[in-house]
Amino acid sequence: MNLNIGTILKTHIHPVPLEKSYRLLNHGPTVLVSAQDQTHTGVMTAAWACALEFNPAKVTVVLDKSTKTREIIENSGYFALQVPTLKQLKLVYALGMMSQRDAPEKLRQCGVELFQFNHSDIPVVEGCAAWLLCKLIPEPHNQQAHDLFIGEVIAAYADDRVFRNGHWYYHEVEDEWKSLHHVAGGHFYTIGNPVSVDETPD
Amino acid sequence: MNLNIGTILKTHIHPVPLEKSYRLLNHGPTVLVSAQDQTHTGVMTAAWACALEFNPAKVTVVLDKSTKTREIIENSGYFALQVPTLKQLKLVYALGMMSQRDAPEKLRQCGVELFQFNHSDIPVVEGCAAWLLCKLIPEPHNQQAHDLFIGEVIAAYADDRVFRNGHWYYHEVEDEWKSLHHVAGGHFYTIGNPVSVDETPD
Repeated sequence: MNLNIGTILKTHIHPVPLEKSYRLLNHGPTVLVSAQDQTHTGVMTAAWACALEFNPAKVTVVLDKSTKTREIIENSGYFALQVPTLKQLKLVYALGMMSQRDAPEKLRQCGVELFQFNHSDIPVVEGCAAWLLCKLIPEPHNQQAHDLFIGEVIAAYADDRVFRNGHWYYHEVEDEWKSLHHVAGGHFYTIGNPVSVDETPD
Repeated sequence: MNLNIGTILKTHIHPVPLEKSYRLLNHGPTVLVSAQDQTHTGVMTAAWACALEFNPAKVTVVLDKSTKTREIIENSGYFALQVPTLKQLKLVYALGMMSQRDAPEKLRQCGVELFQFNHSDIPVVEGCAAWLLCKLIPEPHNQQAHDLFIGEVIAAYADDRVFRNGHWYYHEVEDEWKSLHHVAGGHFYTIGNPVSVDETPD
């Protein structure tokens, strides 16, 4: 199946069943958070995103009060988390360092390219490995006291070159596809090698 | 400085400043969660743990209602998160698959070895790369509705062979030290290679 997204035919992007969408975040990657309200579009980097529930699929993400993207999410009630790749390292760093409050032209300056899935107006970032479209579950206490936002995953997609049949294939693709795991400043680790436990009983 | 922990001299374990403790989790590793109340000691694996705040340092961890460790944490108000290593792969898998409710001898069967830091009675797991001792911040709504537990980090430690001066050195040590990032079932990825953005402006 091909998804005709906007005017671009994205041959490799396929839906991920919602009950499998936690696997897109389970390995702890640094993510990009995107959203738009009636006047603004925001994209920022977040290292503190996590799966919260399998079914209905939910996620958490920590969004500092200083960020414009947080304000946009509070206005619109929707956001996307997406899993960027090593190829996007500079973009991920720039989207995390620069604030749209100081630099209204942040998105243009960072060179981020956005698209939308057909059924949704949440802007998402081109070239990522996976996308989770989320509806904010408003929790004023968590948002105010902890900067913690909870979202229900309403749709999920992945690039089948690196995620298919519910599994990542990082070990079968070029390094440029690997997820990023933030350390501090401009320093990240990429995801490494697969290891498995023999699940048959002794 | 050496820490005399119980009867064992742990030459390589050093405190991590609380405001740097988020870095122990920032790369998204699967963790072990441990706790004890007046009658029980629990240890389980959790892939859904995340930093929540820099200062005062806080963390989140998702603990299913079926787990004994959750009950112990609700009783005692304290828990530890620790970052296990590839060397502990079988242990990490077993502590995640087996429930103390079905197998009261889980900890012995898994072969987990525990110790305590001098100032604390929270049991922690031998051989990990880092430990975060946490005081539960009771949030009944989050715990009941989302299985989400928030802790304030009251002390943090790391093995200086793999984490020192506020940074991981996964790239300088044997693979057996690498963090584990759970995929599903017995399948994990290890953390990979360091990558950096040149932080000097163009």
